[in-house]
Amino acid sequence: MPVKTLNVHTPRQGLFDFTPQVAGYIHESGISEGLCTLFIQHTSASLVIQENADPSAKRDLERWLNRLVPEGDSLYSHTLEGADDMPAHIKAALTATSLSIPILNGQLALGTWQGIYLWEHRRQGGWRTVVVHVGN
Amino acid sequence: MPVKTLNVHTPRQGLFDFTPQVAGYIHESGISEGLCTLFIQHTSASLVIQENADPSAKRDLERWLNRLVPEGDSLYSHTLEGADDMPAHIKAALTATSLSIPILNGQLALGTWQGIYLWEHRRQGGWRTVVVHVGN
Amino acid sequence: MPVKTLNVHTPRQGLFDFTPQVAGYIHESGISEGLCTLFIQHTSASLVIQENADPSAKRDLERWLNRLVPEGDSLYSHTLEGADDMPAHIKAALTATSLSIPILNGQLALGTWQGIYLWEHRRQGGWRTVVVHVGN
Repeated sequence: MPVKTLNVHTPRQGLFDFTPQVAGYIHESGISEGLCTLFIQHTSASLVIQENADPSAKRDLERWLNRLVPEGDSLYSHTLEGADDMPAHIKAALTATSLSIPILNGQLALGTWQGIYLWEHRRQGGWRTVVVHVGN
Repeated sequence: MPVKTLNVHTPRQGLFDFTPQVAGYIHESGISEGLCTLFIQHTSASLVIQENADPSAKRDLERWLNRLVPEGDSLYSHTLEGADDMPAHIKAALTATSLSIPILNGQLALGTWQGIYLWEHRRQGGWRTVVVHVGN
Repeated sequence: MPVKTLNVHTPRQGLFDFTPQVAGYIHESGISEGLCTLFIQHTSASLVIQENADPSAKRDLERWLNRLVPEGDSLYSHTLEGADDMPAHIKAALTATSLSIPILNGQLALGTWQGIYLWEHRRQGGWRTVVVHVGN
């Protein structure tokens, strides 16, 4: 069974580390060497690998992107779904919809300080779906 | 035959949905569960997954990126290939050159509102080449 | 042996072409058709496919991103690791941590003008680790 769906809860806008959920599936799959690919089924949330050590890096990243892509920009015509919807689409386009991570010795080959984050771009979060593929 | 070349026509700058071409190849390949990877062989066009419902989202996204990376910026020294060439390279670097989408039940595991777009960054489009890999 | 670790040296901030190292591994692996995936184990350096013909394109791209994400921005609170650290994390989030390139006829299916670059975002470079997966 190479494909599995993960449900990730996002309580609000921001970066949420879900590395343990992905690592759990790698363990469960029993694969020792291969490739793990993540795909998020949304266009107002995205994926990013970021530093998991100092929380200030995460916070600055969120604030920086919010300043680059602010709500209420007069450029937007797509406003019916809320002031945070068009910024969410733009932020998703600037970050990743899919990510691939090699598997070595039965584990994700992440660097020492890397975590896998779901970036919720809407103010009110919810449940997000990430499809995971594992192959040789 | 896991690798196939798709030719995508872009009449001008902007986002062009080519989901049906990709879906057609998945169907043709007969694969029921696996991974589909797209790779664009250009540095002045790119790939993006975006909302396929309301065309205003697509339009705002194009206009926003054109404002972030305008033509005629005095920073550019690479201008011999036209005023739209250097902005095209920057836009390509900020979006995706490759994308991977899981396959489930013989179909691309896209979210309800997701379409696969080729983002043409040059003013005068043409034919663009996307290499597709399908694996288990 | 589908997974291999490449060590890439970056003498300073900027884009460094390491296509020959990746191509060498494809040759060594003996695979004729498949998929090559690169994953960088860092959050202050990233991957990008860019034009390998005119060096001015590479230079403008570096300068443009340095202007978009400058050092010394008063927004940053994450400053203990140096003035270039937080910009490095942001630049990495805006570009790619993983890239997948199909393999055809025993070679990377790159376009004519495409090179694979490691983008070092710290002022003082060093050795960076890229994990390569090759599959059918």
